[in-house]
Amino acid sequence: MSIALGELAVRFGCELRGDPEVRVHAVAALSSAGPGTLSFLSNPKLASQLAHTRAEAVVLDARSAASCPAPALISPNPHALFARIAALLYPEPPLSPGIHASAIVDASARVDASAEVCAQAVIGAGAMIGARCLIGPACLIGAQVQIGADSRLVARVTVAARTQLGERVLVHPGAVLGADGFGYAREGERWLKVPQIGAVRIGDDVEIGANTTIDRGAIDDTIIADGVKLDNQIQIGHNVQIGAHTAIAACTGISGSTRIGARCMIGGGCGFAGHIVICDDVVITGMAMVSHSISDPGVYSNGIPIEPARRWRRVVARLKLMADRDARAGKSGQSEDPNQQDQDDE
Amino acid sequence: MSIALGELAVRFGCELRGDPEVRVHAVAALSSAGPGTLSFLSNPKLASQLAHTRAEAVVLDARSAASCPAPALISPNPHALFARIAALLYPEPPLSPGIHASAIVDASARVDASAEVCAQAVIGAGAMIGARCLIGPACLIGAQVQIGADSRLVARVTVAARTQLGERVLVHPGAVLGADGFGYAREGERWLKVPQIGAVRIGDDVEIGANTTIDRGAIDDTIIADGVKLDNQIQIGHNVQIGAHTAIAACTGISGSTRIGARCMIGGGCGFAGHIVICDDVVITGMAMVSHSISDPGVYSNGIPIEPARRWRRVVARLKLMADRDARAGKSGQSEDPNQQDQDDE
Amino acid sequence: MSIALGELAVRFGCELRGDPEVRVHAVAALSSAGPGTLSFLSNPKLASQLAHTRAEAVVLDARSAASCPAPALISPNPHALFARIAALLYPEPPLSPGIHASAIVDASARVDASAEVCAQAVIGAGAMIGARCLIGPACLIGAQVQIGADSRLVARVTVAARTQLGERVLVHPGAVLGADGFGYAREGERWLKVPQIGAVRIGDDVEIGANTTIDRGAIDDTIIADGVKLDNQIQIGHNVQIGAHTAIAACTGISGSTRIGARCMIGGGCGFAGHIVICDDVVITGMAMVSHSISDPGVYSNGIPIEPARRWRRVVARLKLMADRDARAGKSGQSEDPNQQDQDDE
Repeated sequence: MSIALGELAVRFGCELRGDPEVRVHAVAALSSAGPGTLSFLSNPKLASQLAHTRAEAVVLDARSAASCPAPALISPNPHALFARIAALLYPEPPLSPGIHASAIVDASARVDASAEVCAQAVIGAGAMIGARCLIGPACLIGAQVQIGADSRLVARVTVAARTQLGERVLVHPGAVLGADGFGYAREGERWLKVPQIGAVRIGDDVEIGANTTIDRGAIDDTIIADGVKLDNQIQIGHNVQIGAHTAIAACTGISGSTRIGARCMIGGGCGFAGHIVICDDVVITGMAMVSHSISDPGVYSNGIPIEPARRWRRVVARLKLMADRDARAGKSGQSEDPNQQDQDDE
Repeated sequence: MSIALGELAVRFGCELRGDPEVRVHAVAALSSAGPGTLSFLSNPKLASQLAHTRAEAVVLDARSAASCPAPALISPNPHALFARIAALLYPEPPLSPGIHASAIVDASARVDASAEVCAQAVIGAGAMIGARCLIGPACLIGAQVQIGADSRLVARVTVAARTQLGERVLVHPGAVLGADGFGYAREGERWLKVPQIGAVRIGDDVEIGANTTIDRGAIDDTIIADGVKLDNQIQIGHNVQIGAHTAIAACTGISGSTRIGARCMIGGGCGFAGHIVICDDVVITGMAMVSHSISDPGVYSNGIPIEPARRWRRVVARLKLMADRDARAGKSGQSEDPNQQDQDDE
Repeated sequence: MSIALGELAVRFGCELRGDPEVRVHAVAALSSAGPGTLSFLSNPKLASQLAHTRAEAVVLDARSAASCPAPALISPNPHALFARIAALLYPEPPLSPGIHASAIVDASARVDASAEVCAQAVIGAGAMIGARCLIGPACLIGAQVQIGADSRLVARVTVAARTQLGERVLVHPGAVLGADGFGYAREGERWLKVPQIGAVRIGDDVEIGANTTIDRGAIDDTIIADGVKLDNQIQIGHNVQIGAHTAIAACTGISGSTRIGARCMIGGGCGFAGHIVICDDVVITGMAMVSHSISDPGVYSNGIPIEPARRWRRVVARLKLMADRDARAGKSGQSEDPNQQDQDDE
């Protein structure tokens, strides 16, 4: 499909500088754009690419528009406007309502007639699948699961019994929702399993990445609030709560019973201790170890930038030297950092 | 189902303070408990919740029992007693012995008549499935795999050829047991694959979390001993050996040929170098880099608690300053830390 | 099967010291080898095992051959020679060309007649499966996917629409190729999804480990060059590019739009910031945080070896003390480390 710039300006209520009859049919990066493509500029670091772009039109803010060599769609938030136009140009493939012959749906499950259940999906007893849902190929939907309208499980998603998903939830392949949490009682040298009888409750407009795992609660539920975005290979322990519109990048792990506030932004590869509380509007940079609660909004870090190995070994040697010196001076180190102490108890 | 406190006291051999006729039918956290529910107190940090709990009864130790407002089941290990009672109140759903019509079982596989093989499972040539096993939906069981009695593969577990599982092994969705290890010989700029011909051997009473991967051995086998508990998204390299009753939290990775002793407790997000040996009874706190062998039991760490980013940048600047100063002073750093050196060779 | 040492020497063009009629039928580690087995020595740390090995023959270099108690196959690269012999002794099981009755193949897909499509595989519209491919059980192949000749998807691999794989690509269970990248535009407190319309392109001779995820590009493609080896549970963000013959160990995550050069060796558990560039021939040791671009080949690190917890707490206390002291002295920390600053902007 192609669409005229004038139509885009009207539909999205934005200013157009240039010929409203110009049409675009695809999106492209500024540097690789060609005829018929729409590009965008939102990262100031890429501004130098604007002068030479061959895009048919560009989405950008008013300040950048002056130096744009092509027709410009102007928005104070060009990234968001671009996202909306891209969604228009690249619509999701329409559903084919119905249940594939190879899918296995329990007689007591209720699948809305407008939903699509793909090849080799399995839907358990008492499950409820809402209107216009996509249950992709090889998805496993456990007993008593509830999935709200317009949710899409792309493919091979595992949803354990009693998990609840809101509306417009998007889940990518390999995600496992509602597996048992890691709960044991120690008895001598053995571990005795504590039955994990809570569930997972997921709000509306949540996206869950490939191979991400969200454990069911031990007793109460694990809760993911509305609008949360989870990247790939994230691990969420039992009874974790994540506040609305928090975004978490890939490979981050959150230990059991930790609560993260709303609108937080968590970098990739972070680790959260269990039973801590992070307030709203916290930003954690990548690979941080979050070992204690945070009660003030702001940016938090503890990663050390990489160094040439030879140079780095000097830093490590220095750190050890400091510890040795303190040890000789008789400092115990024990009461100096209660947070660290705390973490040892995990 | 519901059960009388008197019956619980007799069955589990524990002291009851209160009316033996009182019945419980569910478990709940102290803070959210209501009529008919049984709660427990094992973490001293939650002791303050005891006074106001509305639980019908509470499992706790003798010291706490005095301040318990409800009937009390008393145990020196209340967490373990609670786990046993919860398992009684929330039994696993009974098996439906037999093979689902959509499962594909090789003619040479032997599936015990008391086992349940669910929808779309695939069982390869020569595999042996023991008594009362659950092979959940969409599990793939490779050729010559052996699975001991009473094991449960919840759903979508992949077990590669020749893997052996003991009795009462519990495996969660997305786990991959027996994929090839990461073994190559360098030849010029290319990598030549070294065939991975070992297997994976897993003992009795092991639990394996969602999306955890355990690679088959290169030549000899990868070995997980009895009673080991592995959380989600753990990676175990080829020829690793893990000793009995060791518990490892989520997102930890263990490089090839490393041996970890018995009864260790490993935090989440740790990384182990290859070819090292960790003795019995070691505790590693979360996100630690274990780059060298450990021969003394105890607690080990190297995580740095998170800081406000501005404050943290000062620490980083200081570390770099130290290295620069040493560099100017002509220190090489090369022989100062043989362990670090070692790790570079990986 | 068994094979004579003389035949091996001829086939692989290597020197044999010993009886050419001696036959081997299996491979084994030096320490556990027995009659009829072939072992190898390439790691000098294991040289002490050579004297007592019971292997029928050993692959090693000329220097070590003198002290070998058994017939010796001599190569300057014994690991590579061993890999070739092992591949000969343990050939992949032959394909059974054809499509399993339970597989679901779209009528418009083209599957080469020499390929094997296993039980419960699903192949989408317009997909093309090359000669002698193995599409293992429960693999999902999306629409328009192209898979080159001699590629093997072992089992349960998810390949999203339009992904391209080269020839001789080997993919292990649970891998997800082509899921959506993590791309959102912020709009008030909400996140607006940016359609991910790029694809994933994978070269020849690539190996991809179990439960590894490679996201499709946002606009342009994510690209994995020829000969790249990816271990298990690796996360590759959208628009990442990885150069030829780079090897990456397990649990490493690479953020979006980062480019890694050719012949790099990346340790396990590393994290790469987005939008950075790593040149060719870089070695990164395990668990490093790569927060800025690297333009010089060499070895880079930032892991701190583990310490007994008590001793480590002293190091942490010292680091905090330094920061406090600097803070009192009025140093801002803000402009000291632009790279760190950069990372905060992610």
